[in-house]
Amino acid sequence: MMTTETPDALIARLAAAAREAAAALAHAPADRKQAALTFAAQAIRDAEGAIMAANAEDLAYADGKGLSPAMVDRLRLDAGRIAAIADGLRAVARQPDPVGRLLAEWDRPNGLHIQRVSTPLGVLGVIYESRPNVTADAGALALKSGNAVILRGGTDSIHSSAAIMACMTEGLRQAGLPDTAIQMVPTRDRAAVGAMLRAQGLIDVIIPRGGKGLVGLVQSEARIPVFAHLEGICHVYADGEADLDKARRVVLNAKTRRTGVCGAAECLLIDRQFYARHGAVLIEDLLAAGVEVRAAGDLARIPGTVPAQPDDFGREFLDMIIAVKLVDGVDGAIEHIRRHGSQHTESILTENDTTAARFFERLDSAILMRNASTQFADGGEFGMGAEIGIATGKMHARGPVGAEQLTSFKYLVTGDGAVRS
Amino acid sequence: MMTTETPDALIARLAAAAREAAAALAHAPADRKQAALTFAAQAIRDAEGAIMAANAEDLAYADGKGLSPAMVDRLRLDAGRIAAIADGLRAVARQPDPVGRLLAEWDRPNGLHIQRVSTPLGVLGVIYESRPNVTADAGALALKSGNAVILRGGTDSIHSSAAIMACMTEGLRQAGLPDTAIQMVPTRDRAAVGAMLRAQGLIDVIIPRGGKGLVGLVQSEARIPVFAHLEGICHVYADGEADLDKARRVVLNAKTRRTGVCGAAECLLIDRQFYARHGAVLIEDLLAAGVEVRAAGDLARIPGTVPAQPDDFGREFLDMIIAVKLVDGVDGAIEHIRRHGSQHTESILTENDTTAARFFERLDSAILMRNASTQFADGGEFGMGAEIGIATGKMHARGPVGAEQLTSFKYLVTGDGAVRS
Repeated sequence: MMTTETPDALIARLAAAAREAAAALAHAPADRKQAALTFAAQAIRDAEGAIMAANAEDLAYADGKGLSPAMVDRLRLDAGRIAAIADGLRAVARQPDPVGRLLAEWDRPNGLHIQRVSTPLGVLGVIYESRPNVTADAGALALKSGNAVILRGGTDSIHSSAAIMACMTEGLRQAGLPDTAIQMVPTRDRAAVGAMLRAQGLIDVIIPRGGKGLVGLVQSEARIPVFAHLEGICHVYADGEADLDKARRVVLNAKTRRTGVCGAAECLLIDRQFYARHGAVLIEDLLAAGVEVRAAGDLARIPGTVPAQPDDFGREFLDMIIAVKLVDGVDGAIEHIRRHGSQHTESILTENDTTAARFFERLDSAILMRNASTQFADGGEFGMGAEIGIATGKMHARGPVGAEQLTSFKYLVTGDGAVRS
Repeated sequence: MMTTETPDALIARLAAAAREAAAALAHAPADRKQAALTFAAQAIRDAEGAIMAANAEDLAYADGKGLSPAMVDRLRLDAGRIAAIADGLRAVARQPDPVGRLLAEWDRPNGLHIQRVSTPLGVLGVIYESRPNVTADAGALALKSGNAVILRGGTDSIHSSAAIMACMTEGLRQAGLPDTAIQMVPTRDRAAVGAMLRAQGLIDVIIPRGGKGLVGLVQSEARIPVFAHLEGICHVYADGEADLDKARRVVLNAKTRRTGVCGAAECLLIDRQFYARHGAVLIEDLLAAGVEVRAAGDLARIPGTVPAQPDDFGREFLDMIIAVKLVDGVDGAIEHIRRHGSQHTESILTENDTTAARFFERLDSAILMRNASTQFADGGEFGMGAEIGIATGKMHARGPVGAEQLTSFKYLVTGDGAVRS
């Protein structure tokens, strides 16, 4: 890295190399990409010591900076986590190749045979925070989908990420693929992020992985498309015709399985009919599990709850806290979710097919569920093998973003000397 | 329209009404949308006199402004063109409904059944120039795909567009759909275009219909996604193993059928082997048809040609002009097209399957053809019924943008009390 290079020039240089690599990757055979990932997985196993040493440097830096225990935990690698990174690479390697798939095919009366086939997007930019494993995950999904990628990891994990990056490069080289297919921005300078967000025509899509601060910055500053979600304000609605056992199971899991994930429920909407029939059981379950229940209206009289403030609805707690409210049937739930939701994931608990269909039809979240926990909002659970995040926008990718969502398409048209009249 | 309203406030007001309409349209029954289009078609037939009168106003204004004959022609409506607008609405009405289609469906070992179904995008913004028929075409495709749309027509065609717009509104009202589903920006103030391009979160996608000036402005200024192509620099490559008859037919059609369309060929690349075998026949055909042939290198010695300048390659003539050049086989053609193309449409003329496969695989234009005229680059020819333009970007829509490309999707997930472990 030349210290005299501006951030814009740096990103332009990386992107030019990425574009070259992308042209080669676009028609790289599936087994070559697979081999690169398998070699990289082996390189990571082989480099365990070097990766741990690099991670120790980052941890020492974090210590000096006084990072929170949660952030230090995200940053920390151990033998188990390093093995999981290598396993993740092998899992992506085994996935079906998402490039060159025949998406549709038809004949036309004008004599043309038309095929629509999947192609890579081009050059991805991934901006992430302290988790060093994103280096491998994002690199693997980009490569699998035939895209080149520029990674910009958190400054706190720069040594760990660099050590993992070296293994990805090793995998590419061993497979005979261009080693600029996966590149890392080699500087702690935060201005590089701004340069990536401005890189129109150089980077095709930006994928931020991190908290609301990072995602919000990227969404407001980026001049290129972004695949992301800002918040996961997920709702569970217990309908009057819900099965009580299923409802109890799903509500508890949706809130408490893990509270820090984007698919965790943040708001429980209870149909007045459900409440009339079953009383406070769902709320009592949550209280018994140690959840702080912020209750609106009549529900605030239930012992153990605290009164909800207006801004508790539409709020992402990411904690053992839930907002609860009574609504009038599915239409009441739909109205509330439209006003307060973040179009991520919502679940309806009902045995009534018509009611479920109305919930599915009239809401437009990326993921709508019936009698299932919102915690299933995850690429692995959807069978996508791996994901680079969940997108709530409606352009191109939506829901869990796996390798398939990182592709575009082109039309292949065959005639026999066909001319247009 | 209040004259004190700023352009940003005006667009925000229209977009808020559009968002409301979009929520209703998203789950409007297919037959209701179909009825609105059929009623609008009838309203256009009934309003022929009023539309002609409005068009006369625009033509008088154009006359005073000294518009070019080509622009006046685009602006002019007559009974035939008005009938064609109505027919276009009926054709879109007859298309299959693109919303609520089941795109994919699978079961998971965790007990979940997952469906991916199509949904509208939301609110479209269409910015166009003098052709008043775009008012009906764009409105119809937006409605068909369940999207609300804000139309910003050319200032020159404002009266004609308003008269057509009134018929669209009439169709919506008769079908009981919100009349704010299709709205027109009610001002000649060019600042409204800037306000549309800045309307993040209000308008979901911008579709410019017009010349390079308009599209370039939109692409560089828009803060929201754009479906468009800046240029159609389409190439035809005559391979050494081309069939001569097919090649002659396709080259002539690709250049001369219509020269002003984006799918017109602008550059002919001739394999040295083809030239050794067949000589100058393709160029002689073009010359005989009255095409100005700008020839590079040895080809410039062919009588009747003019020497090509370097910037004739990668240039969109939109005229009876073509640039021609000898290349070394398919790889020479690929290299030239990668450097000078606009990722719109390219065609290879060859009988060799392997060569054609290489051309298809290594180029990444929205449309790649074999033994077919580039003039087929058109939604109607692709069987899409109608298109709002051709997109060369790789995000979301690509190639001809029909009603189907104006949709997104959501996941519908069904369990039976499923919780995540």
